[in-house]
Amino acid sequence: MNYEHFIYIADLLGVAVFATAGALAAQGKRLDILGVVVLAIVTSIGGGTIRDITLDIHPVVWIADTTYLWVAIISAVVAFVVCRYMQYPRRLLLVLDAMGLALFTVLGAEKAMALGFSPVIAVMMGVITGCAGGMIRDILTGQIPLILQRDGELYATCSIVGAVFYVAFYDVLGEQFLALVGMAIVFVVRLATIFANLKLPEFIVAGHTLEDMDKGQNQ
Amino acid sequence: MNYEHFIYIADLLGVAVFATAGALAAQGKRLDILGVVVLAIVTSIGGGTIRDITLDIHPVVWIADTTYLWVAIISAVVAFVVCRYMQYPRRLLLVLDAMGLALFTVLGAEKAMALGFSPVIAVMMGVITGCAGGMIRDILTGQIPLILQRDGELYATCSIVGAVFYVAFYDVLGEQFLALVGMAIVFVVRLATIFANLKLPEFIVAGHTLEDMDKGQNQ
Amino acid sequence: MNYEHFIYIADLLGVAVFATAGALAAQGKRLDILGVVVLAIVTSIGGGTIRDITLDIHPVVWIADTTYLWVAIISAVVAFVVCRYMQYPRRLLLVLDAMGLALFTVLGAEKAMALGFSPVIAVMMGVITGCAGGMIRDILTGQIPLILQRDGELYATCSIVGAVFYVAFYDVLGEQFLALVGMAIVFVVRLATIFANLKLPEFIVAGHTLEDMDKGQNQ
Repeated sequence: MNYEHFIYIADLLGVAVFATAGALAAQGKRLDILGVVVLAIVTSIGGGTIRDITLDIHPVVWIADTTYLWVAIISAVVAFVVCRYMQYPRRLLLVLDAMGLALFTVLGAEKAMALGFSPVIAVMMGVITGCAGGMIRDILTGQIPLILQRDGELYATCSIVGAVFYVAFYDVLGEQFLALVGMAIVFVVRLATIFANLKLPEFIVAGHTLEDMDKGQNQ
Repeated sequence: MNYEHFIYIADLLGVAVFATAGALAAQGKRLDILGVVVLAIVTSIGGGTIRDITLDIHPVVWIADTTYLWVAIISAVVAFVVCRYMQYPRRLLLVLDAMGLALFTVLGAEKAMALGFSPVIAVMMGVITGCAGGMIRDILTGQIPLILQRDGELYATCSIVGAVFYVAFYDVLGEQFLALVGMAIVFVVRLATIFANLKLPEFIVAGHTLEDMDKGQNQ
Repeated sequence: MNYEHFIYIADLLGVAVFATAGALAAQGKRLDILGVVVLAIVTSIGGGTIRDITLDIHPVVWIADTTYLWVAIISAVVAFVVCRYMQYPRRLLLVLDAMGLALFTVLGAEKAMALGFSPVIAVMMGVITGCAGGMIRDILTGQIPLILQRDGELYATCSIVGAVFYVAFYDVLGEQFLALVGMAIVFVVRLATIFANLKLPEFIVAGHTLEDMDKGQNQ
């Protein structure tokens, strides 16, 4: 498997994972199957679309290759059907979201670096590609964006850490190895964050004393 | 009236209808007249703007022809003034929204097909053009997006059904007749949905047993 | 200092001011420093990005010149650190927001006029550039957009008034003088609005009798 194939498959996997997460997020929202498909598509291609439009890459990835759309549609339909007959643990949504975040962060940064943009732009594109889809999903489903929820505290941080790592070692490590390590970093840090949030509430409180300051000052 | 004229007038009518719906949605939000105009503009040209940018069609429709902006501005001002002196039934907002959805769904799909994009892209563009403006409006006015409200259950579905019909019969039916039938389908299905939601609550409950599954599992 | 320098510095000042406002808005949201940086970047470059993409100006301003990103990052970090050790009055956020609104409204209109777009497009671009970043910030932090809050009643209005003034006198006044007066108008009107909202509640009530009409009709 050469590098182009690797990137392509990782990209489709990211779409499948985010589309499934999008479909799961639709639960209890009174959406029918087509509504779920729309939500899944927006979640899975939203980030890449914003990246391509901002970088003036046309046609946008899923317009150039409709495989992306079909993967999103099929993933959403499968998730919708499976959810009706099986129970799934709530945490599955978070794990899928973490996988999508990991894949898309690195793929977003990779695309910008490959096109010769500067490192800081590449990091931005990694964060946009990784985080935007999930944010749009959360906004459309009327939830507090995952980025701001308790267990989402370090959401953008995980993405930035992975993107910075990827960019920093871009010319040093082999491209495929680098991409895999970058993805692993985002995924592991993200899962660790979710776990840490459940176990270390004191850390959060200590880190946000400014919150109380603000309250005392203004109310 | 030739086909280009028909499309142009339908497009402007969609802008007028969505701008009016946007202005009505501003009620009770403490917006002054210029705020209402901004909201009306965003609602009425938001979907088409996202479509054009995604398809890399420049200049964007309302930049190429400012008639769109003026129609939106005038509709909003008229709606604002009329609302001060007349009562209007709440359902008017839903009917106008359904009309805009019908017009823009077909026009979005039409534009993509006319430019030679694949059918699945055309359906996506129909849904984006039809739904995006209303979603932005609902997000900006801090409401649960209509797409997720009780009477909005099949919102995206109506749009998809119409767009799929339009694309499926694109080379079969006369273009103007096809467009009119497509619009009628979206409009009628959407109104039927609103009506059905009021009359058939059992259908909804039965269709979402997964909701309870989820609850039992995770809380 | 020639005009290009003036515009460039005003643009960077707008980024710094909006980034700081974005960082302050993150208070009490459980975001760590990198989350705050992301929020500050989105707030400060969001409006200009939408403007450039809509007008098909590529590369987008902060991609062409990464100084914008660095100014946003440094402003956010400074705001984050300072907030930990100092109390700041809540109103500072509103004043910074008003400054950013003033700078970006005029700069957005200026860019469109300089590129030869029609006056109504230039006003739209002023409003988009001025208002979009703050709206995205408010949506992402799960707040009612400032544009719809009590003291944000005339938010879009301030922007429109300044943009219309700028466009109306574009060929009449000296460009730098015109820009400064336009910015001053937005800033002063915005601050007056905040002040007026605290002092003149009756004005608001009187201006929104339609609200009660609506209630009587529909509930």
